[in-house]
Amino acid sequence: LAQDCRMSEAIIKELIKKSLEAKNQAYCPYSKFRVGAAVLTSTDKTFQGCNVENACYNLGLCAERTAMVKAVSEGCSTFKAIAIASDMKEEFISPCGACRQFMREFGTKWDVYMTKPDGKYIKMTVEELLPRSFGPEDLTEEKMTK
Amino acid sequence: LAQDCRMSEAIIKELIKKSLEAKNQAYCPYSKFRVGAAVLTSTDKTFQGCNVENACYNLGLCAERTAMVKAVSEGCSTFKAIAIASDMKEEFISPCGACRQFMREFGTKWDVYMTKPDGKYIKMTVEELLPRSFGPEDLTEEKMTK
Amino acid sequence: LAQDCRMSEAIIKELIKKSLEAKNQAYCPYSKFRVGAAVLTSTDKTFQGCNVENACYNLGLCAERTAMVKAVSEGCSTFKAIAIASDMKEEFISPCGACRQFMREFGTKWDVYMTKPDGKYIKMTVEELLPRSFGPEDLTEEKMTK
Amino acid sequence: LAQDCRMSEAIIKELIKKSLEAKNQAYCPYSKFRVGAAVLTSTDKTFQGCNVENACYNLGLCAERTAMVKAVSEGCSTFKAIAIASDMKEEFISPCGACRQFMREFGTKWDVYMTKPDGKYIKMTVEELLPRSFGPEDLTEEKMTK
Ligand SMILES: [Zn+2]
Ligand SMILES: [Zn+2]
Ligand SMILES: [Zn+2]
Ligand SMILES: [Zn+2]
Repeated sequence: LAQDCRMSEAIIKELIKKSLEAKNQAYCPYSKFRVGAAVLTSTDKTFQGCNVENACYNLGLCAERTAMVKAVSEGCSTFKAIAIASDMKEEFISPCGACRQFMREFGTKWDVYMTKPDGKYIKMTVEELLPRSFGPEDLTEEKMTK
Repeated sequence: LAQDCRMSEAIIKELIKKSLEAKNQAYCPYSKFRVGAAVLTSTDKTFQGCNVENACYNLGLCAERTAMVKAVSEGCSTFKAIAIASDMKEEFISPCGACRQFMREFGTKWDVYMTKPDGKYIKMTVEELLPRSFGPEDLTEEKMTK
Repeated sequence: LAQDCRMSEAIIKELIKKSLEAKNQAYCPYSKFRVGAAVLTSTDKTFQGCNVENACYNLGLCAERTAMVKAVSEGCSTFKAIAIASDMKEEFISPCGACRQFMREFGTKWDVYMTKPDGKYIKMTVEELLPRSFGPEDLTEEKMTK
Repeated sequence: LAQDCRMSEAIIKELIKKSLEAKNQAYCPYSKFRVGAAVLTSTDKTFQGCNVENACYNLGLCAERTAMVKAVSEGCSTFKAIAIASDMKEEFISPCGACRQFMREFGTKWDVYMTKPDGKYIKMTVEELLPRSFGPEDLTEEKMTK
């Protein structure tokens, strides 16, 4: 049944909790803007990430990508969902374009939970966040030379 | 009138032609995937860009961002439209997530022309390509601490 | 004694072994160039990373940075050494400039082991790999406005 | 004669002047740290760049890379020298690791002038700034599979 594919509210809550927790490790001396993320794999493992900034601003890394490379480096590259958390009380934190493209590398049909510190959230799929995107399947030799 | 704000077909064609032309300068020994871009400023200047790759793949730069930093470095940071061109005959080339975020820095309401080598195109706004995005106005101290 | 600060050969070997192992998780469908890294923290924990590429080449991440953001996201940001491994039999794999800057964020006086698959290595400090660099301490308000 | 290859003091001064001038276009609302760069091609053309930042800090671009992609997109990818300028009165501004790698793509034996606002400078080659680097010639199939 379709419902079976959906994540239960308990699981969503747990994932969001872990994204909030991940925020505590943020290394962000430049922006002072802490972000946390927690990604849930198809094998039901969770990986937590935070933003890691750099004195050369453009060399930092977002929390979402940190969580995802952790997963990949541990052998997990199929995802069900990712939750993102910040300290902004009145805004749902949304992923940057680079993180959307990074998510999209691993599929378009999984869920992104954009949250507030109180646990409220908006859910969108990767596809909705990055419409008309390109990914691994577009770089086949056939497509590129045609 | 609203129509006055729209770009004429002649101007669109010219911009697309310049994006195709820009592709010839692509430095892409790794992907062998040439991309060109041409951005039209609010002052009706055009800046052309190509992709510039690197032996460390993740240090390369896309054509769209090349075109835009050229414009900014010449004092132009308000844009009407950008056209993107590749060699893929059967696909409309679309911008990566990082380029969408880079565009979005300079406004959400301008146009992206995704083209084929024969000049056919699809038009979408930056906002449509990067829904629920964040930008400069979201990083005010007030918003970040609330 | 100075010797006490040095890593024993056994520890170096172990770190290199872990960097070789990490390589197995590499996600590199574009370059087909697998890289692994293992970073040793001041608290003697090891974190392993691999390269994670993207269809938009410039959005990928190197193995060294993957290992380091993993460490930071787990609360470890003081490092003793990092080992890097690739499949190139006749070359010592060296870090890209972006990874050197990322390392440098967390200090200049720690060691980088550039290895071959057979375990042979060259050791250099972050400082030697990135001379005359800038880092967090250079971005104090005082220095920037003087 | 060897001297003939060297740039005259007049040319160096001019290049530094252009890097200082380029700084005026910097888009850096986040760091407030203006940087300018001017690159001199083997055909004696000069291209000026500035830093262009982004609300997602890690998506910004440094002045040096801006200057270089401008040159490449105009058909120039062999360089004699680059000058870098900032507002720091008491420090010679030096390039980040990513920019060093970007420079290195186009050769190791050209000059980087790190300046102060008063025109004083330190000169180093790309090779000195990024020792034991890898570049395009290391990604030949032969080397990668051996
Ligand atoms: Zn991001
Ligand atoms: Zn792009
Ligand atoms: Zn690297
Ligand atoms: Zn730089």
